[in-house]
Amino acid sequence: MKTYLDCYPCFLRQALSAARRAGASDDQQRLILLNTMEELHALPADATPPQMAYQIHRRVRQQTNTTDPYQQARDEATQQALALYPRLKQMVSKSADPLETALRIAIAGNIIDLGVADSYDLEATLERVLIQPFAINDLVSLRTSFAKSSSILYLADNAGETVFDRVLIEALNLPVTYVVKGGPIINDAIREDAVAAGIEQVAEIIDNGSDAVGTLLDDCSKSFRKRFEQAELIIAKGQANYESLSSSQAPLFFLLQAKCSVIARDLGVTEGAVVLKKQVIK
Amino acid sequence: MKTYLDCYPCFLRQALSAARRAGASDDQQRLILLNTMEELHALPADATPPQMAYQIHRRVRQQTNTTDPYQQARDEATQQALALYPRLKQMVSKSADPLETALRIAIAGNIIDLGVADSYDLEATLERVLIQPFAINDLVSLRTSFAKSSSILYLADNAGETVFDRVLIEALNLPVTYVVKGGPIINDAIREDAVAAGIEQVAEIIDNGSDAVGTLLDDCSKSFRKRFEQAELIIAKGQANYESLSSSQAPLFFLLQAKCSVIARDLGVTEGAVVLKKQVIK
Repeated sequence: MKTYLDCYPCFLRQALSAARRAGASDDQQRLILLNTMEELHALPADATPPQMAYQIHRRVRQQTNTTDPYQQARDEATQQALALYPRLKQMVSKSADPLETALRIAIAGNIIDLGVADSYDLEATLERVLIQPFAINDLVSLRTSFAKSSSILYLADNAGETVFDRVLIEALNLPVTYVVKGGPIINDAIREDAVAAGIEQVAEIIDNGSDAVGTLLDDCSKSFRKRFEQAELIIAKGQANYESLSSSQAPLFFLLQAKCSVIARDLGVTEGAVVLKKQVIK
Repeated sequence: MKTYLDCYPCFLRQALSAARRAGASDDQQRLILLNTMEELHALPADATPPQMAYQIHRRVRQQTNTTDPYQQARDEATQQALALYPRLKQMVSKSADPLETALRIAIAGNIIDLGVADSYDLEATLERVLIQPFAINDLVSLRTSFAKSSSILYLADNAGETVFDRVLIEALNLPVTYVVKGGPIINDAIREDAVAAGIEQVAEIIDNGSDAVGTLLDDCSKSFRKRFEQAELIIAKGQANYESLSSSQAPLFFLLQAKCSVIARDLGVTEGAVVLKKQVIK
């Protein structure tokens, strides 16, 4: 997905939020905003939002001399989600359609996104996403793909959301490889977040060798790219994976909530929409 | 009030919104964003938000060769408010405290602000503001000032809000001079908006000689500045009047809703707060 002009103010907001989480002084915060504006000036027309976000968060870490401003937020999100885990499991076991319920739970967990906003209401989102009609509903195709595939490559999004992903993985009858980031960026899940969520007990965990948001294939390790190219079925969670892979020709299903007006418009849905979208192969 | 770093993303959003309302092409919209970022780079540390907003909206009009991108929005807001007018009058006449109810109505009308957001829910805001406790409540002082003063200078904010102001003016027992902008900027009220709201029947209408948001005294006409200096009591509506006059030593009462986190923090209230604040004279 291309970067829209509406993303420009959002990048400034995100840079400021990251600077503050990194403990930047007022002068540092201002400098980070000015530098972000310089980068927006120089932004290539075909750059995706994750490419810009990658630059911003890398620079904030350098300028504030921090390695991981979001670690505490990630840990707290995982703990909050783990407290919900027994209830999530019960929802699936009591459901007339356990797979659909588990998919909805995984999408509900996608609200835990500190790139889009600084806070979220996890329980209210869960209640909503469990019953809200899909704005894009390729569930029938996904069921067919499950039946035809021998394994799943699962591209994770955020820490805490990992617990919701675990509930989905436990509802699947296929071996899953769970892909986290190679290094910390915003609240995107890294290996320790996946382990803390208990993913190790239900899937193989690998990292993509990149500390960018979404999946910038050029920035990923050779070994991950090979897994990606050979995958029979890929589940890609969240906005940034859609933004970075929406032109890919891989066998992708995007599971996400459209949390901003830009991605909603790009997908042809309204803000807040629940999306289960099969990638169109041209 | 100084410009906070949180205002930077908001200025970009506002510039883009204004460009689109002015019918700017995609290329023009992008250029307007880039120019706004250059201006933010050069922004003096002591500039108030209305000074920056003034630059942005003036430039958007020049670059898009339009004189008044918000005229339709202003007309519609006035019509919508006029439709509510009989109900507003009834609320005041049935109230145990007609002055307080009229003040609350005038503050409720302050939601009609296209600088802060692109849309608003007028009726829901009215219901809320009628009963919400004041976060800052200088009503007792204001009553005393009404009793001591022989006239009121009333600094208007937005078109449509003018109708809500009219209800307040009709509840006052003092002659009112109603001050609109000297030229169109965003949806701020100009003379024709005040006339359309029926203000002419209840107050003298003058303009401040400036087409800036808020009240930038240096930009106002000499005749307005004289009225301002000689005023016994000034009611200043809305955020931009607070932002531009918060350091003034005039006998001001600010009536507003804190519609963004920045102004809320500056005032020491929470977002959405209902504020009736007497200016502290040092």
